[in-house]
Amino acid sequence: MNYAKKLMLFLTMALLVVAIQFSGLVQAHEEKGADKEPYVAKTMDIYEGFPDWYSPIFKDNVGLSEGAGLFKDYYKPMAMQMYMSPMRHYVPMDVLDHSLFIEKGRRDLCIRCHDGINTGAVDDWKGSAHFNPRKTDLIARKTKIIEESIGREIVNVDCFDCHADTVKNEIRMPNAEICSECHERQVRQFNSEKDHGRPNHIQAMEANVLVPWYAEASRRGWQAGNGGCDMCHGISTKCDPCHTRHSFSAAEARQPKACMTCHMGPDHPDSESYGESKHGIILEMEGEEYNFDKPLAHVQVGDDYRTPTCQFCHMYQGGGRFTHNFVSKGIWRMGTVPPSNIEYESSLKDYPYGINIIAPKIDLYSDENLDKRDKWIEVCSNCHSPRFATTWLEQLDEYMFQAFKITDSAQLIIDKLIADDILYPSVAERDIYPLGDVLSDLLPASLVGDGVYNAFKTLGGKVPVVGPILGVYAMFYQGENNPSLIETEYAKMWFWYNFRATKVMLMLSRT
Amino acid sequence: MNYAKKLMLFLTMALLVVAIQFSGLVQAHEEKGADKEPYVAKTMDIYEGFPDWYSPIFKDNVGLSEGAGLFKDYYKPMAMQMYMSPMRHYVPMDVLDHSLFIEKGRRDLCIRCHDGINTGAVDDWKGSAHFNPRKTDLIARKTKIIEESIGREIVNVDCFDCHADTVKNEIRMPNAEICSECHERQVRQFNSEKDHGRPNHIQAMEANVLVPWYAEASRRGWQAGNGGCDMCHGISTKCDPCHTRHSFSAAEARQPKACMTCHMGPDHPDSESYGESKHGIILEMEGEEYNFDKPLAHVQVGDDYRTPTCQFCHMYQGGGRFTHNFVSKGIWRMGTVPPSNIEYESSLKDYPYGINIIAPKIDLYSDENLDKRDKWIEVCSNCHSPRFATTWLEQLDEYMFQAFKITDSAQLIIDKLIADDILYPSVAERDIYPLGDVLSDLLPASLVGDGVYNAFKTLGGKVPVVGPILGVYAMFYQGENNPSLIETEYAKMWFWYNFRATKVMLMLSRT
Amino acid sequence: MNYAKKLMLFLTMALLVVAIQFSGLVQAHEEKGADKEPYVAKTMDIYEGFPDWYSPIFKDNVGLSEGAGLFKDYYKPMAMQMYMSPMRHYVPMDVLDHSLFIEKGRRDLCIRCHDGINTGAVDDWKGSAHFNPRKTDLIARKTKIIEESIGREIVNVDCFDCHADTVKNEIRMPNAEICSECHERQVRQFNSEKDHGRPNHIQAMEANVLVPWYAEASRRGWQAGNGGCDMCHGISTKCDPCHTRHSFSAAEARQPKACMTCHMGPDHPDSESYGESKHGIILEMEGEEYNFDKPLAHVQVGDDYRTPTCQFCHMYQGGGRFTHNFVSKGIWRMGTVPPSNIEYESSLKDYPYGINIIAPKIDLYSDENLDKRDKWIEVCSNCHSPRFATTWLEQLDEYMFQAFKITDSAQLIIDKLIADDILYPSVAERDIYPLGDVLSDLLPASLVGDGVYNAFKTLGGKVPVVGPILGVYAMFYQGENNPSLIETEYAKMWFWYNFRATKVMLMLSRT
Repeated sequence: MNYAKKLMLFLTMALLVVAIQFSGLVQAHEEKGADKEPYVAKTMDIYEGFPDWYSPIFKDNVGLSEGAGLFKDYYKPMAMQMYMSPMRHYVPMDVLDHSLFIEKGRRDLCIRCHDGINTGAVDDWKGSAHFNPRKTDLIARKTKIIEESIGREIVNVDCFDCHADTVKNEIRMPNAEICSECHERQVRQFNSEKDHGRPNHIQAMEANVLVPWYAEASRRGWQAGNGGCDMCHGISTKCDPCHTRHSFSAAEARQPKACMTCHMGPDHPDSESYGESKHGIILEMEGEEYNFDKPLAHVQVGDDYRTPTCQFCHMYQGGGRFTHNFVSKGIWRMGTVPPSNIEYESSLKDYPYGINIIAPKIDLYSDENLDKRDKWIEVCSNCHSPRFATTWLEQLDEYMFQAFKITDSAQLIIDKLIADDILYPSVAERDIYPLGDVLSDLLPASLVGDGVYNAFKTLGGKVPVVGPILGVYAMFYQGENNPSLIETEYAKMWFWYNFRATKVMLMLSRT
Repeated sequence: MNYAKKLMLFLTMALLVVAIQFSGLVQAHEEKGADKEPYVAKTMDIYEGFPDWYSPIFKDNVGLSEGAGLFKDYYKPMAMQMYMSPMRHYVPMDVLDHSLFIEKGRRDLCIRCHDGINTGAVDDWKGSAHFNPRKTDLIARKTKIIEESIGREIVNVDCFDCHADTVKNEIRMPNAEICSECHERQVRQFNSEKDHGRPNHIQAMEANVLVPWYAEASRRGWQAGNGGCDMCHGISTKCDPCHTRHSFSAAEARQPKACMTCHMGPDHPDSESYGESKHGIILEMEGEEYNFDKPLAHVQVGDDYRTPTCQFCHMYQGGGRFTHNFVSKGIWRMGTVPPSNIEYESSLKDYPYGINIIAPKIDLYSDENLDKRDKWIEVCSNCHSPRFATTWLEQLDEYMFQAFKITDSAQLIIDKLIADDILYPSVAERDIYPLGDVLSDLLPASLVGDGVYNAFKTLGGKVPVVGPILGVYAMFYQGENNPSLIETEYAKMWFWYNFRATKVMLMLSRT
Repeated sequence: MNYAKKLMLFLTMALLVVAIQFSGLVQAHEEKGADKEPYVAKTMDIYEGFPDWYSPIFKDNVGLSEGAGLFKDYYKPMAMQMYMSPMRHYVPMDVLDHSLFIEKGRRDLCIRCHDGINTGAVDDWKGSAHFNPRKTDLIARKTKIIEESIGREIVNVDCFDCHADTVKNEIRMPNAEICSECHERQVRQFNSEKDHGRPNHIQAMEANVLVPWYAEASRRGWQAGNGGCDMCHGISTKCDPCHTRHSFSAAEARQPKACMTCHMGPDHPDSESYGESKHGIILEMEGEEYNFDKPLAHVQVGDDYRTPTCQFCHMYQGGGRFTHNFVSKGIWRMGTVPPSNIEYESSLKDYPYGINIIAPKIDLYSDENLDKRDKWIEVCSNCHSPRFATTWLEQLDEYMFQAFKITDSAQLIIDKLIADDILYPSVAERDIYPLGDVLSDLLPASLVGDGVYNAFKTLGGKVPVVGPILGVYAMFYQGENNPSLIETEYAKMWFWYNFRATKVMLMLSRT
C-alpha cells in the first residue's frame, strides 16, 4: 500500500480503538445487547463418522508449529497452509489486535477499515446472499429454512459471523465447520462422500500430507513446491474452492469452470475432456442461455441447460435428487482401482494396487455398482436413449478392462527387470524411496503388505516400483536415480496416460 | 431410470399399444390418409461418383455382425459403431418393438413417451427449424425452397421423418443420405469433397477402418480404444458432428467451436492454432457481437464478423459463394503430401509418401493450385491487403519447403540405419507391423509399391518404417519393440511436430 | 479476388487517377489548402535514452535488403518482416503507385477503393475512436487532451494520417513512433520499460534477431521457421499486437486475452496459469459483467472487475496510477535471473547466467525491490488481506530459491560430465554452436565472459552448454548432435519446467 493510504488507515484505526475504549455509548449498546439470550452457534463435526485418528491429524489446530499426519515430524507447514488448511494451521495475526472489536461485539466496525483496504472482497460480499438474505424469492425461501433450523432471524451474515471467534476473542479463518452453522445440510452431504471410498473431496488431505513424498520434499529442501498440492487438496475442509469468497455464489459453483482450477492436467484431465466434448463445447457456445441461478433440482433439461454440467451429472443421486456428494455414483473411481474380473499375471495379482492400503478390486457387477449404473443411465437418458447410454458405458468398461490388462503386461515387464536385477539404476545404487528409511517404522506391515514392508525394512528404503502406488511420486519429483526411467514411464502409464484415456472414453463425446 | 419412472413409462407404453391395436379410430384415420398419394422420399446416394467398392464397404448395412473394409475379417465392430457409423452398422433395438407405431403411421405418438424419457432431445427439437419450419423469415424462405424441391408442403419435420423406416417398419438411425431427402444440395456439396482428394470429410472412414492398425488393435485385444477413432471419423456419413442433434442448428455449425471437438490435438491442432491467433482471440472477446444467424453468403465482413471463422474461410468457393465443401481450396492438404519442387535424396524419392497409395507430390504452381491461391487471397483481402496475404502464403510455402527438406534428411538417417542394420530393436527382432503377416495377401503391389510389398512378403510383416505412412500408426499404439524409438520420433516429426508448425505458420497470426 | 471484382477495381482506379491528374477542381482544392499552415507531426524517438547502437540496428529502414543486428551478414529478412518489424524492413509496394494520391493530399480517396477491397479493415476503423474521436464522452475528453498537445483540431484520424508519408510521397507502414504523434505519453511510458532491464517489451527484438540461432537457422536453410519468432517479438516497435488494427481499441487491449497470443506456451505459460486460476476462471464465467470500457485508473474494484486482469496488476505503478510500462514492478524478471542469496556451487558461481551478457543476480531485498513488493501487496490488497498477499509472495520467493538451488545441482552434473569428457556426443564430435565459428570474432570477451569466449575461440565453436543461456537455443532447434540430450533437458529444466512452475506459484491461485 502506498504511504498516504497506510497513514490514513493507521489514523482511522487508532481513532476507532480510542473511541471504543472510552465511549459510554458503546457500553450502553453492549448492555442493551446483553438482554437478548446470546446465540450459540451449532456447527457440525466435519469428521463425524470418520475413524478416530482423523480429527487429531486434520482438524485440531496447531498453528504453524507442526505439520499434520504420520510424517509431521519431518516437515513444518509453510505459512500459506494457514489459508489452505485453516482448520489445522491458521494463526491469528499478531500485528494488529482485533480482540477489542470482538469483545465489544462491534460488528459494525469491520467494514469501516476493510471497505477501504479490501474493496473487492467487501464488494463481493455486498453482492452476496450473505449481505442480502432476501435478495431473490428463492434466496429468501432458503434463508427462511436456515432461520428455522438455527432458531433465530438472519438480518444479514457479516464479517463477524464467519471471522470472529467470540469465545477466544480472536479472528478466525472460516472453514466448512463454520459454514455448517447455517449450511449444515450441505456439509453433511459433503461429509457423506467418505461412505463411498477414496478418491473423494472430504478425504483429499490424505493424498496430500499423508503421502511420504510430501514430507520428503520438505526434508530435501523443496518444500515450497508442495504449495502446488495444498491449493487443491485444501478442499477437504473448505467451501470456497467452489463457492469463491466473498460471493459464495451457488450460481458460480454450478458452472463447470468452478471445478476446473483443480480438475485439470495430466493426472485428472476432466476440464480438458469435458471442454473438448460436445457437452462442453455447446455450453461454451450457448452458455449465456443456461440458467445457473436455478437449483439443480429445479433445472428443466433442455430449457435451462442444453447440455449437462459436471455438477448436474456428478451431484445427481437418482430420483430427481441432487446433493453435495460428488462421488456417490462413482464406479471406476477415477480409474485408480482395477476391476475384479481381470486376472492379473504380474505381481499385481497379490496386491491389486501394489500395496494393501487401498480398496480391493472393483466388482463392477455388485448390486451397489449396478445400482450406480442405473443412475448414470437415468442421467444420460435426459437426452440420449437409454440404449445409447448403456452402450457408451459398456464401451467404457471394455476400454478399462483392456487398459488394465495392458498395465498388467507392463508390470510384468517391470517384475522381470526386478527379478533379473537389471533395472538401471539398480535398486542398490539408487536414492531411497521418499522417507524410505523410516517408513517401516511408521507404517505397519498390515497396511502396506508384507512384501513392500519387508522391502523397506531390509533394503534401507531403496525399493523398486512394485505396483502403481509406489511409482506415483515420480509424477511429482525425482530423487537422484530414483525411480528409473522405465519405472517412471510405467507410473505415468498408469496415472497419466490411462487416466487421460479413461476421461476421454467417459466424457469426450465428439458427436 | 428410477423405478417409479420406469413403471410409469411401461404402463403408458402398454396402454398406447393396446389402444392403437384395438382402436377403430386409428383405422379410420389410416384409411383417410390413404386417399393422399403417399410421399416417397428421394435420397441422394452419398457415394455417387465414388469408385464401385465404396458402397459395399461403407454403406451396406451389416449391423454388428462384421466390420468394414479390407480388414473386416479381423475385427467385429463394437456396439457404439452403430451410432458412429449408422449407415453400415445400425441395428434396431429388439427390446421394445416400435413397428406397430410405424405401420400405423402414428407419428403423433413418439413424443408422448420420449418427451418424458429424453426431455433434452425433444426440447432441442422443439427449438429447431424442424419443429417450426417458419420460425424466422429466413427459415421460412429456406423451407419454401425445400418444399418446391421435394414437391410437398412441410408442416414440420418430426421423429418419424428421420427415424422411421416406413418400408421395413422399423426404427432407423439417421445419416447423411436421410438428411439429403430435404437437404440434397448440402449433401451433394459435401459429396463433392471427393473431387479434391484426401484428407477430406466424406472419405474420413478410409483413414479409420481401412488402416491395418485399426483391425490389429482389435486382434490384440485393444479394440475399445478404437472408439476414440470412430467418434471423429464417423463424420463421413453423418451431419450431426457439426449440426448437433436435435437442434441441427446452422448458427451453431457456423462457429469455430463446432469444428474443434475433432480438429484438435497433436495431429491436427487447428483448434489450438486458431484459438491462439488474433482471429480466434478476438472472436472469444467479442463473440456476442458476431452474427451467426446469417448464412455465410450474407455475412457483412466487419459488421457481422470482426474476424473470420473456420467456416468462413474454408467453405468459401470464390466469387462470394460458400458451400458445404471444406477442402476445395486446400493446397497443402494438411501438410501430409510433399511438394514437387523438392528433390528428395532419401528413399522418399521413389515413394514421396512412402507408399504408392497416396496422391503424387503437390505441384504448387499448377493452374488448379494457382487458382486456389487466388481464392485464398480473395478471402484474406476482406481485411488484409492482397500483398499482405500473398506474402503470408509465400512464407508458409517457404516454411513447408524447408520442413519437407528436413524430413528428407531425417528419412535419410533412417535409411542409413536400415541399410547398416543397426536399428534397435532390429527388424528381425521386432513385432510385426500391424496385420503385417497378411498385408501382402490383402494389398496388391501396385497399391503400396514394390519395395514395401516385397518387404511384407519376404520379412513376414516385420518391416522398418520407410516413409511417413508406415510409421503413422506409432501415433496411436506401440507393438512390442515396434517401431523403434527413433522411427517413432521420425513419425512424430512428420505427423505431429511438422503439422503443428504448419498450422502455426498458416493460421497463428499473433498480431 | 475474383476477376469481376479485379476488373471493377482496375477501372475505378484508372478513372480516379485520370480524374485527379486532369481536374482543375483538384488543383483549386489544393491551392485553397495551401493557405493553411501545414501541420508538421512531431513523433517521439522510440529509442530515446537507449544506447547509441540501438537505432542503426532496429530502426533505420533498410527494406528487405539486409537483416538487423550483429548477425545481419548471415541472413536476409523474409518478406513478412516488413509487417512484423516495419520500422526497419518495410518496403512500399511497387505494383501500384499511390504517390499521386499523397502528393495531391487526396485523403478522401483511399476509402473509395479500400472499402471494397478490405471491407473488414475499413469497418474496424469506422467503429473506432479514430473515425469518431468524440464517440463517447470519455473519448472526447481524451481527444481534447491530444488536440491540445499537438496544437490542432482532430476531425478524424484517417488512412492518410498513419499510412501516408507526405515527405517521401509514399505509403508507409505505421509503427509506434507514428502512433506517438498523438499518443506520445503512452509510447514514452512504453519506452520507459528499458529502465527496468530485460525481459521487457520494447527490447523484445534483442531476443529475436540478436541471438545467433536466428541467423544460424537462416544459414542452414530453415529461415521460414523464424517467422514464428518475429510475430511476437515485433511488439518492440508496434502497438497493434495489443490494440489490434484497425479498431485500436483500448477496451480490447485491457482484456487478458489481448496478451495471450504471445504469452502462452512452455516458455512463458502466462495464459495457461492465469486462465486456470480463480482469477481467470471467474473472468471467464462473469466476463460480461466486467467493464473494459473504463480506463484502468477509473476501475472500481469489485464493481467493474470481480477479479484482476493481467493489465490491472502489471500496469499498476502504485498510488492509483497505471501506465504503459508492464515491467516496472517486476522482481523476478520472469524467473530468468538467479537471486543473490543463493550461493552457487556449480560453474554458475562465476557466471550466474552462464555468460556476462545479462544482469547480475537479483538482490531481492534491495530498496528498489522492497518498494516493488510494497506495490504488489498494494495491488493484491484490493481484495486480499495484506498478510495473505505477503505470505503468498514469500512462498513464491521460497519456491524460487529452492528451484534455483536445484538448477545449480543440475549444472553441477553437467559440469562434471564436461570435466570428465563424457557428454555424448562429445564436444569434439558435435555440430558447432549456432554461428559458433564466428561468434568470437563478433562478440568481445567482456560481453560473454572469458571462459565462454575462449571456448568459442579455441574449440571452433563447438562448446558444451555451460549455464542456461548457452542451452536456450535447444528450445527452438537442434543441430546435428548439438546439444546432447542431457544438455537439452537441462536447458528445458531452466526455461520450461522452472518457468512453468514459477508462473504457477505466482499466479495460479486455485482457491
